[in-house]
Amino acid sequence: MTTTHSPVRLQAVSAPDQPDVTPALERLYRGFEQELLVPLWTEIGDLMPVHPRPRATAHLWRWESLLRLAAQAGEIVPVGRGGERRAIALANPTLGGRPFATATLWAAIQYLMPDEDAPEHRHTQNAFRFVVEGSGVWTVVGGDPVPMNRGDFLPQAGWNWHAHHNATSEPMAWIDGLDIPFQYLTEAQFFEFGRDEISVKERITPERSRSERLWGHPGLRPVAVRVDAPGSPLLSYKWQHTDAALKDQLLLEKAGYAGTVEPGHAAVRYSNPHDGSDVLPTIRAEFHRIARGTQTAPVRETGSSVYQVFDGSGTVTVGDSTWSVTRGDLFVVPSWQACSARSEAGSTDSDSGALDLFRFSDAPIFEALRLHRTHKDV
Amino acid sequence: MTTTHSPVRLQAVSAPDQPDVTPALERLYRGFEQELLVPLWTEIGDLMPVHPRPRATAHLWRWESLLRLAAQAGEIVPVGRGGERRAIALANPTLGGRPFATATLWAAIQYLMPDEDAPEHRHTQNAFRFVVEGSGVWTVVGGDPVPMNRGDFLPQAGWNWHAHHNATSEPMAWIDGLDIPFQYLTEAQFFEFGRDEISVKERITPERSRSERLWGHPGLRPVAVRVDAPGSPLLSYKWQHTDAALKDQLLLEKAGYAGTVEPGHAAVRYSNPHDGSDVLPTIRAEFHRIARGTQTAPVRETGSSVYQVFDGSGTVTVGDSTWSVTRGDLFVVPSWQACSARSEAGSTDSDSGALDLFRFSDAPIFEALRLHRTHKDV
Amino acid sequence: MTTTHSPVRLQAVSAPDQPDVTPALERLYRGFEQELLVPLWTEIGDLMPVHPRPRATAHLWRWESLLRLAAQAGEIVPVGRGGERRAIALANPTLGGRPFATATLWAAIQYLMPDEDAPEHRHTQNAFRFVVEGSGVWTVVGGDPVPMNRGDFLPQAGWNWHAHHNATSEPMAWIDGLDIPFQYLTEAQFFEFGRDEISVKERITPERSRSERLWGHPGLRPVAVRVDAPGSPLLSYKWQHTDAALKDQLLLEKAGYAGTVEPGHAAVRYSNPHDGSDVLPTIRAEFHRIARGTQTAPVRETGSSVYQVFDGSGTVTVGDSTWSVTRGDLFVVPSWQACSARSEAGSTDSDSGALDLFRFSDAPIFEALRLHRTHKDV
Amino acid sequence: MTTTHSPVRLQAVSAPDQPDVTPALERLYRGFEQELLVPLWTEIGDLMPVHPRPRATAHLWRWESLLRLAAQAGEIVPVGRGGERRAIALANPTLGGRPFATATLWAAIQYLMPDEDAPEHRHTQNAFRFVVEGSGVWTVVGGDPVPMNRGDFLPQAGWNWHAHHNATSEPMAWIDGLDIPFQYLTEAQFFEFGRDEISVKERITPERSRSERLWGHPGLRPVAVRVDAPGSPLLSYKWQHTDAALKDQLLLEKAGYAGTVEPGHAAVRYSNPHDGSDVLPTIRAEFHRIARGTQTAPVRETGSSVYQVFDGSGTVTVGDSTWSVTRGDLFVVPSWQACSARSEAGSTDSDSGALDLFRFSDAPIFEALRLHRTHKDV
Repeated sequence: MTTTHSPVRLQAVSAPDQPDVTPALERLYRGFEQELLVPLWTEIGDLMPVHPRPRATAHLWRWESLLRLAAQAGEIVPVGRGGERRAIALANPTLGGRPFATATLWAAIQYLMPDEDAPEHRHTQNAFRFVVEGSGVWTVVGGDPVPMNRGDFLPQAGWNWHAHHNATSEPMAWIDGLDIPFQYLTEAQFFEFGRDEISVKERITPERSRSERLWGHPGLRPVAVRVDAPGSPLLSYKWQHTDAALKDQLLLEKAGYAGTVEPGHAAVRYSNPHDGSDVLPTIRAEFHRIARGTQTAPVRETGSSVYQVFDGSGTVTVGDSTWSVTRGDLFVVPSWQACSARSEAGSTDSDSGALDLFRFSDAPIFEALRLHRTHKDV
Repeated sequence: MTTTHSPVRLQAVSAPDQPDVTPALERLYRGFEQELLVPLWTEIGDLMPVHPRPRATAHLWRWESLLRLAAQAGEIVPVGRGGERRAIALANPTLGGRPFATATLWAAIQYLMPDEDAPEHRHTQNAFRFVVEGSGVWTVVGGDPVPMNRGDFLPQAGWNWHAHHNATSEPMAWIDGLDIPFQYLTEAQFFEFGRDEISVKERITPERSRSERLWGHPGLRPVAVRVDAPGSPLLSYKWQHTDAALKDQLLLEKAGYAGTVEPGHAAVRYSNPHDGSDVLPTIRAEFHRIARGTQTAPVRETGSSVYQVFDGSGTVTVGDSTWSVTRGDLFVVPSWQACSARSEAGSTDSDSGALDLFRFSDAPIFEALRLHRTHKDV
Repeated sequence: MTTTHSPVRLQAVSAPDQPDVTPALERLYRGFEQELLVPLWTEIGDLMPVHPRPRATAHLWRWESLLRLAAQAGEIVPVGRGGERRAIALANPTLGGRPFATATLWAAIQYLMPDEDAPEHRHTQNAFRFVVEGSGVWTVVGGDPVPMNRGDFLPQAGWNWHAHHNATSEPMAWIDGLDIPFQYLTEAQFFEFGRDEISVKERITPERSRSERLWGHPGLRPVAVRVDAPGSPLLSYKWQHTDAALKDQLLLEKAGYAGTVEPGHAAVRYSNPHDGSDVLPTIRAEFHRIARGTQTAPVRETGSSVYQVFDGSGTVTVGDSTWSVTRGDLFVVPSWQACSARSEAGSTDSDSGALDLFRFSDAPIFEALRLHRTHKDV
Repeated sequence: MTTTHSPVRLQAVSAPDQPDVTPALERLYRGFEQELLVPLWTEIGDLMPVHPRPRATAHLWRWESLLRLAAQAGEIVPVGRGGERRAIALANPTLGGRPFATATLWAAIQYLMPDEDAPEHRHTQNAFRFVVEGSGVWTVVGGDPVPMNRGDFLPQAGWNWHAHHNATSEPMAWIDGLDIPFQYLTEAQFFEFGRDEISVKERITPERSRSERLWGHPGLRPVAVRVDAPGSPLLSYKWQHTDAALKDQLLLEKAGYAGTVEPGHAAVRYSNPHDGSDVLPTIRAEFHRIARGTQTAPVRETGSSVYQVFDGSGTVTVGDSTWSVTRGDLFVVPSWQACSARSEAGSTDSDSGALDLFRFSDAPIFEALRLHRTHKDV
């Protein structure tokens, strides 16, 4: 009997919960290896922990470094068919060097040089763009040009054709969020190349996309437009609305009314105007404003999140890590690790003194599958 | 045997589909009457027609007349506990003099004198207000004062406390739509009196209600607010948004893109931002803009509608009736009667020359019960 | 000014909640009549009561009388195209002599002579059959012959073709339940005639319908069959299963486990195996077994019900009415009237001594529209 | 600059879609490594393939070998707190020796010696048991003892307390299916130990569980039982019903009616009687019967499946692999690999000559997230 070709390796160990190490047990384990079998009793601690024990680690990436490296890539790495995008992804330090921000989420900085195009394609991976600074790039989704400006959030559900086009004489960077790791792990991905060039008509750059004209009016839906495809039909959530909604929550709080998450902590969720659900089937996106001097309560949640500091500065604690953060910095919150933030009075460059955080997470996966839990640490 | 006290009256008639009139049949019918029974074969034509045969009639009410009578009522009929509201309802000519605009819908003009209050109450009937002209009244829903101005639509789902308050020195009129006939026929109504006086705090008249601060930002929802009650949490759909959405549809059409119902006919549906559904469980509300010179295709639909002309003028055809209509006029479309409209070029007082129509209907009832049908006449 | 042709009649009355009777008020009311308007303040008590005030009355129909009259009709009234069915409906004493058991529900005895056919048709009205005694008739639904035997429940959602065929040498009676009054009041009905004769193939009378072969296995659904149409794809709920489910609940109760509605009161709801919902979009159907000597708690519910005694005997109280009931008797429970039942020990002809009640109601309408309430009287 | 501690390793390669290998590119890649970044352009082929390229491999495990090893384990490996279960899991040959049958699914043989208990616990992982042979073990779910016999399927949704108890003098084996790999990858798991001993009362072994008494009657639901927890409230799907449903489909086919998946191929899905959904939020379970001599069409599907041969014998093809299979054999179908089966006439030990296949898959995950696709190869 030889097990040399089996990928299974079983080690009989002397431990309280394990069977006695005997020649019979060793023979049994060789038999398991031979037949490609693994017992539960050696694996249960790893596979079925008392609460999620994430393989990912809490980690912070500095925007300054990302932007610097992206600009270098802009000089020497072309964008074209095959590579498809000049996108550089966060690789969580404990996920084996893979470009996975967390177990399920991809987060990357994407960089487009003046007048450059990223070619058209589509894929089942759900995606969005979020713009922490700059302007001038248009995303063309299904033939609809969508401008990108600071603070804008652009969801783009799976299987929509899309390309990017920088219409200005300046380079531009933004972040892409996708469910690439999730679809990689569950093996659900399809991909298709589109046209090599978008049309002249799509290079026209209106202030508002067609999707905004149809779906961007509060509480109003077009009578004649059917929605069958997954994801939000609204392709841009402009900053002016997000900012206004957050201001309104804090004003309500000041007037003595409910609306904020906790004192000094306003938050909105980007939602699908067709059915009120999350903007993407697998990704939740939110914007949190933490007023000057506010410390939020630590919260744990099934699944993971990625945050980007949009404005202000402060201190963030995730699990055992604490960082000072400022505009553009990105950090990840692995599953069931407590996350809290403090806005730092006086040290901010924003008008309001608030710490503004963009956040995305995989919560819709767990809610859809009845696996979602949250816990507020006392 | 005597049947004098039975409400059942059966007449044996000589007709192709009816049993032969014989003494035995007469005896049988007397037996039915005695036992409170009615056979299907005498009733089927009325009860089970080939398509809906509405008891209601297409009819037009002139705003001028309504307003005149409402103003007279303002002078001599007080508003107070018991009568509750100075509301005067459309009584469809073939519904027996009852205050039913159609079989299921109530439509009334409500009128409030300067500084007058309508007392607080709540009821299971779903309601809304729509303002064709004027301003200055505040509806207070669950303690949240909501201003009313020309073009605003204010839904108010069943069982919410509400009162009205005229904060100005002018009388104000608007229309109320409710599902009173539906709940009367199905016997589902509950009603409760509230406080006799609303508080000073609720007499404050902010530009925007608290509901708008939380729910009035396109595609954004407050993370911390749970929605359990039926109906839209957004209590006002302001005219500026409705107007902008309609303009956008017509601009898209002009640029060669889809979005309108048919050429020259834009339409938006007021929707619940929490789940994208209709604003009220039993009532659908829409706004239609018919561009100058456009004639819409005749459409039939299960269930009934009430329209109010918001602006412009034109010609409306419902079933066999055709009317010239102008601002404020109200008309009803009974079940399965074809309705179409024409905007009349040149004869309008509106800027755009469009015919602007506010509409509400009972379609959510039929959709929820899988009974909804529409048909576009060729 | 003349109002002779207006259906509106308004009477100014001297009452605490009404405006003072003055010549001005009289003129106002004449103006209302002229313009087909009715004020809320004269109607609110009737239209918006504190709780449902049903127009229908609690009433009992004796099976013996129904069966006797149906048998007479069998002798002298033919079944054929036009009249369609030899169905004789309960006419609630306070619903104006119309064939309405309650405001929304139709209940009739249908009677078919030996070898007789009822012709094929379809309609949007949702329907079911329930068999209190006899056997031998086949309902053919969409070409699928479904046998009918004592205790069987056969739902048949709107717009399915159906015909009936008596394959025996005995007449047979059963009850039909439909939402005819609801669809009449809301004006949603469509109707279409089918073939005059069903085919020889459909006269074959298998023990089980095809629908039962596909959908009648507990917790199992056919992988290859899509369900798009409303209503249950299972066309027969056979008595043996209903009886077994009720016995099981009472055995569980005896063993100390939950499952019954209250001590001695077992109840099952007929449900759609496709989605677990009610069998019909507008009609709920249940079977209640009240063990010997048990008195149920009085319950009020929005909407109305019709009950038929399937077996046993006892006493039923609905609102202010109390009746002794026995096999086949039918009674109605108007909206928000308390209903309770007592099984009478010793006086029953059933094996178990239980009072077995079939029930159907309009509850799905109110649940779908968020209008449903129940209340258990202490 | 040193990158020795970075888990990221980037290799500049000379390839058509890759940037030119230059010192600048090398410097850029060292910068990426330093900052824990990975570009899309080196990874896209692996992460975003044209269609799913599963890491798992089609593979067959022989029941004979599994049973032999499980019996050996029965002799030398105790069952107790800590190890929890004597379960031995399939380890897909290309999943790194982990106990993962596919990327998302766990499949194991569990083995319990005479009079042995497996201790109580609960976990968020969704689970089921399926019995290919033997009887005598009771699973106790939430205090409800559920017997296990050949052909029975027992779902057990996450977070239900459960223990197993062998009440006989013979060992018994069965298979467990769980979503352990999925919850491991997405990091959603919670686990809790229960009582060390189940009570005497739970050792009573009724023929039917309480769940079957409440939920095991076709199309009937208990009126008084609320369902809030995820997963089916029916804890056992007995073989007699599964077998009858499959026979019925083949009889319908023989009579010329629809119902089977394709000629000679009957299939039922185990479903939740509360809402008609899959029995578990993340796992679909089905039973397929392939009539003697039938060859099924190759089908591809997003996500993976595990099959166990319940009866008969035949040939199965998955991707490029083809195996002769017989009772108890288990095989896996990775994502988007074509699977087909042929029942082999004459060579079977089953009465019917059919090939009976139990199947479970992760399809509900993809359906819930709008990622599900199927393709029938021509």
